[in-house]
Amino acid sequence: MKLLRHGPLGHERVAMLDAEGRLRDLSEHLPDLSGAAVGPETLDRLRGLDPAELREITDPQRIGACLSRVPNFHCVGLNYARHAAEAGKPPPSEPILFSKASSALSGPNDAVVIPRGSEQTDWEVELGVVIGRETYEVSEARALEHVAGYCVVNDVSERHFQAERGGQWIKGKSSPGFGPIGPWLVTADEVPDPQALRLSLALNGEVVQDDSTADMIFSVAEIISYMSRFMRLLPGDIIATGTPSGVGMGMSPQRFLRPGDLMELEVEGLGRQRQEAVAAK
Amino acid sequence: MKLLRHGPLGHERVAMLDAEGRLRDLSEHLPDLSGAAVGPETLDRLRGLDPAELREITDPQRIGACLSRVPNFHCVGLNYARHAAEAGKPPPSEPILFSKASSALSGPNDAVVIPRGSEQTDWEVELGVVIGRETYEVSEARALEHVAGYCVVNDVSERHFQAERGGQWIKGKSSPGFGPIGPWLVTADEVPDPQALRLSLALNGEVVQDDSTADMIFSVAEIISYMSRFMRLLPGDIIATGTPSGVGMGMSPQRFLRPGDLMELEVEGLGRQRQEAVAAK
Repeated sequence: MKLLRHGPLGHERVAMLDAEGRLRDLSEHLPDLSGAAVGPETLDRLRGLDPAELREITDPQRIGACLSRVPNFHCVGLNYARHAAEAGKPPPSEPILFSKASSALSGPNDAVVIPRGSEQTDWEVELGVVIGRETYEVSEARALEHVAGYCVVNDVSERHFQAERGGQWIKGKSSPGFGPIGPWLVTADEVPDPQALRLSLALNGEVVQDDSTADMIFSVAEIISYMSRFMRLLPGDIIATGTPSGVGMGMSPQRFLRPGDLMELEVEGLGRQRQEAVAAK
Repeated sequence: MKLLRHGPLGHERVAMLDAEGRLRDLSEHLPDLSGAAVGPETLDRLRGLDPAELREITDPQRIGACLSRVPNFHCVGLNYARHAAEAGKPPPSEPILFSKASSALSGPNDAVVIPRGSEQTDWEVELGVVIGRETYEVSEARALEHVAGYCVVNDVSERHFQAERGGQWIKGKSSPGFGPIGPWLVTADEVPDPQALRLSLALNGEVVQDDSTADMIFSVAEIISYMSRFMRLLPGDIIATGTPSGVGMGMSPQRFLRPGDLMELEVEGLGRQRQEAVAAK
């Protein structure tokens, strides 16, 4: 299934995409798409519905974040070797974990606001993993059984806030709108191999990131198993699994977002995002 | 008001502490104490109730975390000069921000489980701040208007996971049970000056941390104003504002938690916590 939320910010309703690419209303079956809603029982119940019997939505005003809120918005750092190199770092020997404020979540096509005082707002296309059940100390072999689905993430990052303002990365990862997710939450049964997905990002039409999740240093299963030794993962937790090379910080000369810049992101099978960078009001 | 949650884990009910220290049932007035419930409208509504007319709870089985879930569990690092010194770091020139997984939340008297493989689980008594309304780019002068209340936090930390396992601190801050909060959420009207609270922690009866929030490098108002330039704070967000000196990492020789060790924490006016360290099963 491809599940989504559509409507004005803060008033989104749940829908699914049918096999013909039409939106089908789920709002009578699910009040919202958040943590508890991505558990196996709810997903199985939705799978039992006949899309043809659901009302078609012909005029979606806006596609929202594919999850309404998340208990945690986790991220993995430097998980592609060429990206680690462009960041001037050695490939990590174990996964680097950090987080974004959950309030950074935004819709896949919402404008990305360049924060006041920012000179170094940057892009990062990533495979997002959504956890479907409580997960603690899970083996790598069983880790993927805990995944509800996958989505496109743009892990928007302010490099000066991230690295030059005293310590931990969260400061450069959390501004409002720094977490576009979606358009769809694609359930795990439709993604037989999360390590075989092409992912790309074009800036003003020029492809700047283009790689495959096959090039991850730590696979999705390794990441989940590893994380689950340090914390209990919750249904609805999102894990952004790292970005390949081609971010603005790694260019020579460096290049960062300016008002009017257009980002177009895609992860194979998970849909497309399109964001315009705008100045803070 | 002093608000709390009592009952078995996952089935807590909301209550308030009356002026005589008795628990009064609020479960008919509030289904749970989470993000939306700490907004000014809900708190004002609860203030309008007469505690004497609420059913008294004479046999609370267990006091739970004073918030059922939090959108974000933020923390400030090295916010007391002597603690920065004992950690071998200079006092920060601007607040250091990091986060704990929200799943680390636990009750004020629940056992603290030493994670499998941990040799360096440590304690940190802190003043916790609970945000009451959406907060972005707020001035220092108005920051405290955005506080719903305060609580005791033990920012339990695994030092090896935090510093020696590849990067960001979240890895050592997030194990299940690493976030005891409570016993009460004390609303802001009962805390006229958050910078004049004594806070202490005793280990097996010996006072090892004993300081005042007057010694914070960055005040609560400064922290909130600063954070709000990097992220939107949400109702129910908790901010642990840093620990004073006296953690196990800073002792000579260093000392860390072993099964059977007893922590007793207090922040003036906010109540007491008492946790026993236990081995992972």
